[in-house]
Amino acid sequence: MTHKDARTPASTQTTATSSVGEESGKSIGWHKAYIEGSRPDLRVPVRQVHLTNGQTVTLYDTSGPYTDPHVETDVRRGLAPLRENWIIARGDTEEYSGRPVRPEDDGIKHTSPRGGLRNLDAVFPGRPRQPRRGRDGRAVTQLAYARRGEITPEMEFVAIRENVSPEMVREEIAAGRAVLPANVNHPESEPMIIGKRFLVKVNANIGNSAVTSSIEEEVEKMTWATRWGADTVMDLSTGRNIHTTREWVLRNSPVPIGTVPLYQALEKVDGKAEELTWDIYKDTVIEQAEQGVDYMTVHAGVRLAYVPLTANRKTGIVSRGGSIMAAWCLAHHKESFLYENFEELCEILAAYDITYSLGDGLRPGSIADANDEAQFAELRTLGELSRIAKRFNVQTMIEGPGHVPMHKIKENIDLQQEICDEAPFYTLGPLTTDVAPGYDHITSGIGAAMIAWWGTAMLCYVTPKEHLGLPNRDDVKTGVITYKIAAHAADLAKGHPGAQAWDDALSDARFEFRWEDQFNLALDPDTAREFHDETLPAEPAKTAHFCSMCGPKFCSMKISQSITERFGGAAEGASQEEIAEGMLQKSKEFAASGNRVYLPIAD
Amino acid sequence: MTHKDARTPASTQTTATSSVGEESGKSIGWHKAYIEGSRPDLRVPVRQVHLTNGQTVTLYDTSGPYTDPHVETDVRRGLAPLRENWIIARGDTEEYSGRPVRPEDDGIKHTSPRGGLRNLDAVFPGRPRQPRRGRDGRAVTQLAYARRGEITPEMEFVAIRENVSPEMVREEIAAGRAVLPANVNHPESEPMIIGKRFLVKVNANIGNSAVTSSIEEEVEKMTWATRWGADTVMDLSTGRNIHTTREWVLRNSPVPIGTVPLYQALEKVDGKAEELTWDIYKDTVIEQAEQGVDYMTVHAGVRLAYVPLTANRKTGIVSRGGSIMAAWCLAHHKESFLYENFEELCEILAAYDITYSLGDGLRPGSIADANDEAQFAELRTLGELSRIAKRFNVQTMIEGPGHVPMHKIKENIDLQQEICDEAPFYTLGPLTTDVAPGYDHITSGIGAAMIAWWGTAMLCYVTPKEHLGLPNRDDVKTGVITYKIAAHAADLAKGHPGAQAWDDALSDARFEFRWEDQFNLALDPDTAREFHDETLPAEPAKTAHFCSMCGPKFCSMKISQSITERFGGAAEGASQEEIAEGMLQKSKEFAASGNRVYLPIAD
Repeated sequence: MTHKDARTPASTQTTATSSVGEESGKSIGWHKAYIEGSRPDLRVPVRQVHLTNGQTVTLYDTSGPYTDPHVETDVRRGLAPLRENWIIARGDTEEYSGRPVRPEDDGIKHTSPRGGLRNLDAVFPGRPRQPRRGRDGRAVTQLAYARRGEITPEMEFVAIRENVSPEMVREEIAAGRAVLPANVNHPESEPMIIGKRFLVKVNANIGNSAVTSSIEEEVEKMTWATRWGADTVMDLSTGRNIHTTREWVLRNSPVPIGTVPLYQALEKVDGKAEELTWDIYKDTVIEQAEQGVDYMTVHAGVRLAYVPLTANRKTGIVSRGGSIMAAWCLAHHKESFLYENFEELCEILAAYDITYSLGDGLRPGSIADANDEAQFAELRTLGELSRIAKRFNVQTMIEGPGHVPMHKIKENIDLQQEICDEAPFYTLGPLTTDVAPGYDHITSGIGAAMIAWWGTAMLCYVTPKEHLGLPNRDDVKTGVITYKIAAHAADLAKGHPGAQAWDDALSDARFEFRWEDQFNLALDPDTAREFHDETLPAEPAKTAHFCSMCGPKFCSMKISQSITERFGGAAEGASQEEIAEGMLQKSKEFAASGNRVYLPIAD
Repeated sequence: MTHKDARTPASTQTTATSSVGEESGKSIGWHKAYIEGSRPDLRVPVRQVHLTNGQTVTLYDTSGPYTDPHVETDVRRGLAPLRENWIIARGDTEEYSGRPVRPEDDGIKHTSPRGGLRNLDAVFPGRPRQPRRGRDGRAVTQLAYARRGEITPEMEFVAIRENVSPEMVREEIAAGRAVLPANVNHPESEPMIIGKRFLVKVNANIGNSAVTSSIEEEVEKMTWATRWGADTVMDLSTGRNIHTTREWVLRNSPVPIGTVPLYQALEKVDGKAEELTWDIYKDTVIEQAEQGVDYMTVHAGVRLAYVPLTANRKTGIVSRGGSIMAAWCLAHHKESFLYENFEELCEILAAYDITYSLGDGLRPGSIADANDEAQFAELRTLGELSRIAKRFNVQTMIEGPGHVPMHKIKENIDLQQEICDEAPFYTLGPLTTDVAPGYDHITSGIGAAMIAWWGTAMLCYVTPKEHLGLPNRDDVKTGVITYKIAAHAADLAKGHPGAQAWDDALSDARFEFRWEDQFNLALDPDTAREFHDETLPAEPAKTAHFCSMCGPKFCSMKISQSITERFGGAAEGASQEEIAEGMLQKSKEFAASGNRVYLPIAD
């Protein structure tokens, strides 16, 4: 989104202006700026692109303080808790001693000799902070406030970010059509909103696995993903150091963090699904709640009766959480403990303002399995659960597939919106074909763009490594950029106000051969510049009125510019006759000018 | 498309069989095979993938003789003229001396001292062959034959390739809903068909430019593009050696070759659009017709009156051909010479069976310009021209945009189909946003998949270098693979018979952890294997029942397999009660088996 005028309905003051001229002192390129809200501690980050023609384009910015040269960051100290005063000021939360951190939280076995050596104080070296929760078990959620008619600083923050009114933000949250994930124990996060009336958001998954891992790598992947535009990050770690990794990620994350608590719970029972219990699960949720996880995937829709519906599928159950719960149900021949204890879980989530991401444990894992009875049976249960969650004032979004051919995509979003009372849909792709491992960012980017156009609020990225291995740094970037494309294409198709101004600015730069501006406006300036320089590396080429694609003689843009120059003024609002007459005149001028539509060629 | 049963309606004999067991002697992996038609010289190439479970999957194959280990190819001699006897046997063509090749055909100026040194016999060292054309100016087109009720060997060939009946092929061509580009002077090409009832096709552009070039590079790009699945190749060369490059490409190409004759004509007048004449253009068309170009982009829809309609566009005219014709119209203040001489052009094309690709010279070059009056005014003229072309028995397809946001895509294909009497649509993308230079294979792959689902017959690829530079080898591959994904996703969404069998085979292999089969079935086996090996390089990992993504304990596929094993038989056709009862039983078995849903871990 671009703010053509930075004075949004929500902002009373802007530190960033976008008028031509005023900015002429600024150097060309990207700059971090802030739009101030109704209070000095409410400063919404934006990315400003200063163009060579003096204009400024203001873009949404997910990169956090890391891109602000005036802020010193240190991963060992974490980010500043920008929401802390807002949370305290509401007076509805209290600090408490919290659950003690245990060796098994980091995957260290009771029997392990290393268990005793663990220094629990060293989980995170930064500011020690006691966890916080709703006083007297009350719901301290943005949904509760919105329903009460309160516009929180968080709501004002996202209103400025999205260039809409704070009241509209409140209404969408109150109606359950949008969520603002914001655990009271993650005050470092910059508020953002997920809902179909807002910009489409992108989630990036990170996480070590039993096979490869490193804490530093995961923190670095998180900042890298947000640098390129990830709106939220899910930490899906499953190996060692799972608690510590999460702590470091949270303390350094400017975006909401999501998890799947079931993964860690399973670690605590040595990977034996049948040994999982509600108590172990609940303890894990509280552990993560106190750390500050903003939203949690809960596979409570995988009910015992649905498991046999997957038996004749091509690819069975492909969701890890779904398959764990299915195995538990089978082992005990009992209804899912997540489904049975869902109300108690709601009470816990409400006390920290953790948003539900109701998992689609039975999502299709192949084209053949799309939109089948197992998938839609679970969806109906998710609708039932979302109504319970809202009764407890817990913000709720619904997860969606998966692998779906194009002609079956729309049914997914339409059904979800109907069944779940328009709760935000959060989909993984979907992948539109199974035949291209190594390119599943593309097979899924196609489906993601379409389903977002039709109303999906957040897209979970897929990297080129999907189905094959763990994404490295390059894969994370490729996944995020691909999904930013899908999200922005959807914003355009939905007619989001302001979305097209970005495209227009880049197309103007293209037509006017402002190469530096094209690079700086690009979703990935580095790659755009590098590709251009591969063919025409010389610095003058960046201001040349042609490019390597067609060479100087064949440049359609150049020829076309001369048409604009000749007819530009005349054509606007003119009748066909006037234009025809004007053309004759212009044609004479054209001949008089020597019929030169090309620039002289140096050659 | 996969042939589950290789005995297609059109084939009387197959050299390739697909029954399990018979193939067990073959080694695992890809193999070139042929399906024989009603005559021994009609052999349709296919790619067979032999799986570790003894099954064979048969895929469409565009790679030509280069992937046949029994055929020796030599770029200096060219490919065998497989269609030559079919063409001669029809008895409606004649050889003739042909137009002499001139230095200026290769961009060598009359005044150039090097002009006289040119050895014209050396254009191509292979078989000298006189050009051929329709006897007595008759139309020797597949459209003429189809209308007469004749099923040509070319039609039988594509029927086998597409697994449909030859009569259906004939009907679609006769109705103008499909084209089979097959210049009588390009007998080396393997017949293929472009139409909405057939598999969606992909075109790859190659071509040197004034800035960089090499003949060998272009031939290599062509074989490389077809190796990865390009169904046709357009040679858009504009620099030196344009005639010779084209000759080498044609003599070595197993797929139809398209060109834009206007580019070469412009070279002949030193890049001065205003000096173009109908005679120079016509001479260039005949030059290329005699070489064997199978389809030509003709921008005859850029009429004088439409030029002012582009004056207030964001990005004016972005088609090179369109801008050249607009410049000509402006310079002379005259109607386009292509429009004025269209009937004479039809006569020429009919005599060689060259297919029209009516160019969209006024296509939008930015999101802002999509679906505007200039674009649709030209489209209406293309409809008029397509009716004239068909009157002359010239096969015709229509080119489409460009840059179009998702919500405006469907209008493009719907209007085109209505205005052009369902003539095949051939689109460039469209790109669904302007903001991602460096990733326009993805911005356009999204639009391409959608517009193909809705009826576009062929997609012109876009590489990552679009808007930035000339594609190299890697870019060509990335562009082709991205567009094969878009095309196949559309085949699935259109419910093309057999399309899903490929996805199913790959998903089966995935669920059964047959890694080698997954790689061999992948659209790009090399990349799939490489990505897998990055994380788990050891050979045993390729048969391991887990992968690096989740590690052995978290593998949903593994857990899911055990569900299939437990319920697979019981669930098929069973009632909910029977399933519930079966579950209780199975649950007991599950407990009895020690609740093990995971494989023992070696660790």
